Amino acid sequence: MDIGFIGLGNMGHAIVENMLKAGHGVRVWNRTRSRAQPLAALGATVVDEPADAFAGDAVFSMLADDAALSEVIDGALLASAPRDLVHVNMATISVALAETLARDHAARGIHYVAAPVMGRPDVAAAGKLTIMAAGPAEAIDRVQPIFDVIGQKTCRIGSLAQQANVIKLAANFTLASAIETLGEAASLLAGYGVAMTDYLDVITSSAFPGPVYSGYGKLIAERRYEPALFKARLGLKDVRLAMAAAEAASTPMPLASLVRDNLVEVMARGEGEKDFAVLGEVAARRAGR
Amino acid sequence: MDIGFIGLGNMGHAIVENMLKAGHGVRVWNRTRSRAQPLAALGATVVDEPADAFAGDAVFSMLADDAALSEVIDGALLASAPRDLVHVNMATISVALAETLARDHAARGIHYVAAPVMGRPDVAAAGKLTIMAAGPAEAIDRVQPIFDVIGQKTCRIGSLAQQANVIKLAANFTLASAIETLGEAASLLAGYGVAMTDYLDVITSSAFPGPVYSGYGKLIAERRYEPALFKARLGLKDVRLAMAAAEAASTPMPLASLVRDNLVEVMARGEGEKDFAVLGEVAARRAGR
Amino acid sequence: MDIGFIGLGNMGHAIVENMLKAGHGVRVWNRTRSRAQPLAALGATVVDEPADAFAGDAVFSMLADDAALSEVIDGALLASAPRDLVHVNMATISVALAETLARDHAARGIHYVAAPVMGRPDVAAAGKLTIMAAGPAEAIDRVQPIFDVIGQKTCRIGSLAQQANVIKLAANFTLASAIETLGEAASLLAGYGVAMTDYLDVITSSAFPGPVYSGYGKLIAERRYEPALFKARLGLKDVRLAMAAAEAASTPMPLASLVRDNLVEVMARGEGEKDFAVLGEVAARRAGR
Amino acid sequence: MDIGFIGLGNMGHAIVENMLKAGHGVRVWNRTRSRAQPLAALGATVVDEPADAFAGDAVFSMLADDAALSEVIDGALLASAPRDLVHVNMATISVALAETLARDHAARGIHYVAAPVMGRPDVAAAGKLTIMAAGPAEAIDRVQPIFDVIGQKTCRIGSLAQQANVIKLAANFTLASAIETLGEAASLLAGYGVAMTDYLDVITSSAFPGPVYSGYGKLIAERRYEPALFKARLGLKDVRLAMAAAEAASTPMPLASLVRDNLVEVMARGEGEKDFAVLGEVAARRAGR
Repeated sequence: MDIGFIGLGNMGHAIVENMLKAGHGVRVWNRTRSRAQPLAALGATVVDEPADAFAGDAVFSMLADDAALSEVIDGALLASAPRDLVHVNMATISVALAETLARDHAARGIHYVAAPVMGRPDVAAAGKLTIMAAGPAEAIDRVQPIFDVIGQKTCRIGSLAQQANVIKLAANFTLASAIETLGEAASLLAGYGVAMTDYLDVITSSAFPGPVYSGYGKLIAERRYEPALFKARLGLKDVRLAMAAAEAASTPMPLASLVRDNLVEVMARGEGEKDFAVLGEVAARRAGR
Repeated sequence: MDIGFIGLGNMGHAIVENMLKAGHGVRVWNRTRSRAQPLAALGATVVDEPADAFAGDAVFSMLADDAALSEVIDGALLASAPRDLVHVNMATISVALAETLARDHAARGIHYVAAPVMGRPDVAAAGKLTIMAAGPAEAIDRVQPIFDVIGQKTCRIGSLAQQANVIKLAANFTLASAIETLGEAASLLAGYGVAMTDYLDVITSSAFPGPVYSGYGKLIAERRYEPALFKARLGLKDVRLAMAAAEAASTPMPLASLVRDNLVEVMARGEGEKDFAVLGEVAARRAGR
Repeated sequence: MDIGFIGLGNMGHAIVENMLKAGHGVRVWNRTRSRAQPLAALGATVVDEPADAFAGDAVFSMLADDAALSEVIDGALLASAPRDLVHVNMATISVALAETLARDHAARGIHYVAAPVMGRPDVAAAGKLTIMAAGPAEAIDRVQPIFDVIGQKTCRIGSLAQQANVIKLAANFTLASAIETLGEAASLLAGYGVAMTDYLDVITSSAFPGPVYSGYGKLIAERRYEPALFKARLGLKDVRLAMAAAEAASTPMPLASLVRDNLVEVMARGEGEKDFAVLGEVAARRAGR
Repeated sequence: MDIGFIGLGNMGHAIVENMLKAGHGVRVWNRTRSRAQPLAALGATVVDEPADAFAGDAVFSMLADDAALSEVIDGALLASAPRDLVHVNMATISVALAETLARDHAARGIHYVAAPVMGRPDVAAAGKLTIMAAGPAEAIDRVQPIFDVIGQKTCRIGSLAQQANVIKLAANFTLASAIETLGEAASLLAGYGVAMTDYLDVITSSAFPGPVYSGYGKLIAERRYEPALFKARLGLKDVRLAMAAAEAASTPMPLASLVRDNLVEVMARGEGEKDFAVLGEVAARRAGR
């Protein structure tokens, strides 16, 4: 297929590599052009303008946040795009922006698919992402072959694009809650001289297997928050987006509020660039440890 | 081995069955004697007094809570027990009581091992419990063959019995937090017409595999809280024990406080006998769903 | 003095009356012109455009919120205003917008004074408002005679206009916390058949005199939330503004978060138009009362 | 009247002085006898045993907490007391213990009146306490002349003694919430360089007059927590008692939980002997100030 790709951060880069390996042609654009060069060596075509990528069979975008997205995907870009193009937006953005984008694309005859993913850059590089896809079914059908190349599983969510974003935000809230839980548990254990690793051994071999409890638990056990795999600052961004979506639907989420407040403390302490696991330090500080 | 067993609820019953199957002799005692009879048919010896069970190579106990334990395991019983007996207490009790019991047993020359478990009666019946064992290492060594029969894994925690109880309480707090998380996520999703099953599909196939998220998530998705596998009332008991242990160690656990308050609401609503998953209703009610 | 006044809700109306009574000339503008007519009978001049009010010695504005303000006070209006005009903004707005307005006014040579007030319409009618004034000292000096007519006390806060808004938001957060406190106390008392009025009698005659505890306490005691003197929906708006200001300064406010969540529940229940005291129902519901 | 008095801490001492000044005869007992001597100089009779005080027309007690009370007021003491004696317990104790005491006294034919007070030692010395009295009406009638001497106002709560304790705990919860509010407000203000004194000036001259906001607000503004007028450790004790009473009546009090967690942090930080206002430091720390 003839694919455009906008946004070549760690995630975008890994995804494009897998597209190229599978034999697809990819026109790539990035604000900082130098980040695109390594992909040229792998067969990608580096283009000068977002509009050059916003064409062909489908265009994928993976930008950092609402602001970055709104700067690139504007009315002029949509006006210049070919009708019937499929735009697959993989970024974790607000539900409100997803609703707006879906409406604006439809008004121009462009298909808008929201396809946020579960998995960090190493998972993306392995082609093992879990993809949440929502939007018009036929549009998703057209890009499914690409999803099969970059992910291990595609969950079809619904016909409204923003529904995929809601699930992504709920998933990241789940992550934030689990880390908060680990942090508080760690403080309790420390109060009795119990090794965090013993607790992790017990729960991960029974009720809580999987990478979150073992991975973040290990970081908290070691109180090691650098280098950050997922920065606390970005975790706060996602919790905020979940709360904004919840408030727009008149839904209290007191656990989200609690984690938000702890992450604001993280920011106040200048720890925003550390790993999300730094929530454990908030609990430790409060217990005087 | 010649084993005594005190407390034949669903858990105790399943554990004794596995002991008998493995060829051990078991003298069983239960306050309501009739609950012991089915085990007699499988080879157990039903005894009249706790003291009859508190003898032999080792005695196991699996009673409901601090109060039930304190009624049975008193000074007179310890005074009547043979020196060098190993008492393995599998119940989820308070850290404070565990400390007291360890001290009182030691004063009488009896070995006290705390061995709370992860797993519900079906897991116990399958001999797949995860056992957290703490206490004198030689005492644990002596009963390890029994642990191997009733569990899939024994995690050795430390030499202080109460440390196993701390881990058990931390594990149950982890469970409570996960259920609260699922409940709030469900309310957010419902606000956007997104199926809870889609969210569960995404998270359990990526970051959150294992029985908790899929199992409790399903109950919340279906808003089905009966029959209760783990009653909310007992969940509250455990969260309280975790908080009491935390407070004794000057450790704030705001997430535990949040879940506690929600479980108090559950009690106020007369839902204490429903499944722990009923936390999802608290979130749903608050969002007017 | 020759004064313009923009925004004739209940508060604005009461304030203008006092200006007129004191002999000042007031040119009044309101989006819905009919609301201005009664003031014409008292001597006010009703004008057609905001710009007609944005002139003279000083202009006061009392609009509902950030959105209402931004619609009226825009670049064109500022460009048309005479240099050296003093604009006194009495509305409870966001700290962010206050900062922007201060900057935009200064760029045009217009003096911007923030002067939010404590007191509801009946207090305004009595000329008993407490005024928090911040901005350039000389500009405040010029309008102080007007403040003396409409309020009982002017607290000079600082030279940065937004500082007055921060205090106003902190004061409204204080109010929200007090109401939440009353609601939870009421639920506790009801659990023991104790009359809320006895509790109010005790606290208002000792540590907590003043209108908040007695007034909101009475509404909660009677579970009477209509007619609303201060709507829950507007209370939520103010708590949100306080939290936004706090987050911009990396300040966790967990009590504000708690009240916010309860007010989101109020919205979900369709009680947003009821009095702020309806927070008491959230507490009552959770206790099953 | 012929009065016995048990418990001569700062509060008890000040109260007895006022009884003596009014011409009443007072037999005083204190565990540490030396604390009683200064009262002998003022006319009190120092007695050797609690039973010597537990006689006459009425006996008042003002002991520190449930534990101190239970050590002194036991079955033997009640058995030795004259029938028809009125015992007025002024201490802030648990609702559960109040219920037990009321029952035990009644069984012995002794009248039990709960009469906790609002006011610190300086207020007690001035005879300005606010007294919450609950219990049998005739018993209260008999001691009302004494209440008139030691307090400015007696609020009659109900015929069940524990109801007065519920109000006292609700009042102290109200105090704790107000201090938490002041602490969070202070952090918000500090984020914008606004003087806490300006905020206090505004709220105490409008919606929040009275000693709590001005007094604790001043301590927080100055970050001065010693000497403690009301220790944080004792504040935590009272919040715990309020929560225990609430939980026994299935009443969630999330704001009480929040304050409790912050006070546990205070304990963890070794600040339990500082003034209750030290809650402001918890908020300040979290905001990195």
